[in-house]
Amino acid sequence: MSALITLLSDFGAVDPFVGIMKGVIKRIYPAADIVDITHGIEPQNVTVAAMAWQTAVPYFPPGTIHVAVVDPGVGTSRLQIAVQAGDAFFVCPDNGLLTLVARDRAITKIVSIENPAYRLTRTSRTFHGRDIFAPAAAHLAAGVDIAELGPAVDDIVRLTPTEPAIRRDFIIAHIVYFDTFGNAYSDLTESRFVEWGTAKFELTVNGTVVDHLVEAYGDVERGRPLAIFGSHGRLEIAVRNGNARTSLNLSLGDEVRFDRID
Amino acid sequence: MSALITLLSDFGAVDPFVGIMKGVIKRIYPAADIVDITHGIEPQNVTVAAMAWQTAVPYFPPGTIHVAVVDPGVGTSRLQIAVQAGDAFFVCPDNGLLTLVARDRAITKIVSIENPAYRLTRTSRTFHGRDIFAPAAAHLAAGVDIAELGPAVDDIVRLTPTEPAIRRDFIIAHIVYFDTFGNAYSDLTESRFVEWGTAKFELTVNGTVVDHLVEAYGDVERGRPLAIFGSHGRLEIAVRNGNARTSLNLSLGDEVRFDRID
Amino acid sequence: MSALITLLSDFGAVDPFVGIMKGVIKRIYPAADIVDITHGIEPQNVTVAAMAWQTAVPYFPPGTIHVAVVDPGVGTSRLQIAVQAGDAFFVCPDNGLLTLVARDRAITKIVSIENPAYRLTRTSRTFHGRDIFAPAAAHLAAGVDIAELGPAVDDIVRLTPTEPAIRRDFIIAHIVYFDTFGNAYSDLTESRFVEWGTAKFELTVNGTVVDHLVEAYGDVERGRPLAIFGSHGRLEIAVRNGNARTSLNLSLGDEVRFDRID
Repeated sequence: MSALITLLSDFGAVDPFVGIMKGVIKRIYPAADIVDITHGIEPQNVTVAAMAWQTAVPYFPPGTIHVAVVDPGVGTSRLQIAVQAGDAFFVCPDNGLLTLVARDRAITKIVSIENPAYRLTRTSRTFHGRDIFAPAAAHLAAGVDIAELGPAVDDIVRLTPTEPAIRRDFIIAHIVYFDTFGNAYSDLTESRFVEWGTAKFELTVNGTVVDHLVEAYGDVERGRPLAIFGSHGRLEIAVRNGNARTSLNLSLGDEVRFDRID
Repeated sequence: MSALITLLSDFGAVDPFVGIMKGVIKRIYPAADIVDITHGIEPQNVTVAAMAWQTAVPYFPPGTIHVAVVDPGVGTSRLQIAVQAGDAFFVCPDNGLLTLVARDRAITKIVSIENPAYRLTRTSRTFHGRDIFAPAAAHLAAGVDIAELGPAVDDIVRLTPTEPAIRRDFIIAHIVYFDTFGNAYSDLTESRFVEWGTAKFELTVNGTVVDHLVEAYGDVERGRPLAIFGSHGRLEIAVRNGNARTSLNLSLGDEVRFDRID
Repeated sequence: MSALITLLSDFGAVDPFVGIMKGVIKRIYPAADIVDITHGIEPQNVTVAAMAWQTAVPYFPPGTIHVAVVDPGVGTSRLQIAVQAGDAFFVCPDNGLLTLVARDRAITKIVSIENPAYRLTRTSRTFHGRDIFAPAAAHLAAGVDIAELGPAVDDIVRLTPTEPAIRRDFIIAHIVYFDTFGNAYSDLTESRFVEWGTAKFELTVNGTVVDHLVEAYGDVERGRPLAIFGSHGRLEIAVRNGNARTSLNLSLGDEVRFDRID
């Protein structure tokens, strides 16, 4: 088994939380190879974390152990789970973080991490990343069977993310995320758009008509808005060499509307 | 000896300073395994860095070499030191960074890093992280005896952090830190609170009565304030699924007051 | 060959882009040792990235493979290149990122990364960091000869950064960067200043006379402005234990003027 462990959280870059999780992992399994996916998730935003996890996971090697800690319910009765799905393992609170990853790969095993042998001795009710998730990942990396971590669970908790409304004459999608560059991601995937089946449409975003559905930012002039199916597989609204969020005055939830004109 | 090296600084995430320190370490000792504790310490805030170090260090493996560079006095006569304490090594400017770590573990060796064989050839007076601390840590990781780094020093510089005032009838503690989530940490540790010895008290923070001293954020309703001895061992003021700093209008130094009512 | 790979980008700390590049590298070459130089470059600012790369690269071991992705022209006709220069390799868009590194070391090989065997199978036109640069670096780390990556190219694209105007009676340099601490870096290097050849001058920055050209911040009183040839080799304007950018009201492009008075 690979000893690669990834970490994703909303812990930010100021506090020592992420470093502490790495210390716990190294203490249990010094050979662990740890990669950060991101720790800049908006605090307690499980939906955005689920999207980031879905986007990143496919690029890691088989056998990777992925840990996500965005955990508004830490210390409540929500379960902490370890999951085998496709060729990888996932360790997280059972609060919907796995919703989107689980659309792309079959879950073959879910356990509730309860075995005290694979937690820190003193387990707080405020920092399960340190006390439960990091130790579980380290033990998996060290070769512990996932079934040893605790009793089997039937299913995971799932979010119900927004979905685009797709009709014969129109699509109404929604802005669900802005990246560092101010590009706006929607909930419309390329496969659903292709199914809709027309190349003749008018596209409007928050009152702005976007004339260009392109394959590269550079296919329009500098400063012009464009739509593109981004590297993450979703329809993205961008401005070449600019910031779509500020220059088109976009907000989360804004409608991205296609009207058929053929 | 373990080859694990941790880094903590106020260098932030914009400049290449941290990357440069890692390059220096890898050049001297390619097998070094480097973990970041945090580089988001407020610029030149030695007190906050000392707290972060104290919180994180116990979770790392024996033999870890911990480097901290928060160094408002770089290039002055302050010493640069390497310290053996408990089962670990510490490399930092002698400006109080070790104050809190040294409360939890016995110092067995202090040296002033002066041996030119273990520094970069050209040593600046502005970036000792690169020129002195990273090389010292790399050489320790490579197996150099700490006594080789320079002459012995009698003691470290210590800060005098704020302390809570503890009387029979009241405790006045102080807010000393806010984390990413807006949780406010105080200078009151759980052990001192337990010694005070009552469960009957009124707790007020900046004019707000906090009714709940709990063990998990989820033990109160969403949006309600609470007090908790956090994962770091200090009394913390939080708001469930919220931000205590902004919603209770808290500032560094604010009083956290317990009044005995039994 | 060393398997050390460094990454530098403007991807920030919020999105999973950097983590994804690391996943791609680990999938191709699990033994790769990856170090971040910085991902906090201002979005699309190739000039600042070129300075950061120049500053950091000399501190890494021979054989290191340096990857930079600051790429406003992603998806256009700009080349993606791999370069051997001095004792190291460089992988980046051909947009000037190597301008300053190439002043310090001789380029011995440039290729255009076009061989599909060394890219991801599905190559987007929006995320070449993931699809082209990370795979190329991983294959170089794994021992692939740089000539295998694609056809040879004659020369790299170069920026024309600002230069100080140096006359017998004065120097006019310019502020080109602010670091995390608010220190202002100029385009004047120490060697050019030494050539100018006088220790008798008046130095003014945005109307403020700076009386002290020193070797350490601590050589002036707290709160006083100073000039110093920083650890990066450029003239830097700083305020001891303060922030020069805000307290001297400095902006990018401001003149740093030396007038000869001997």
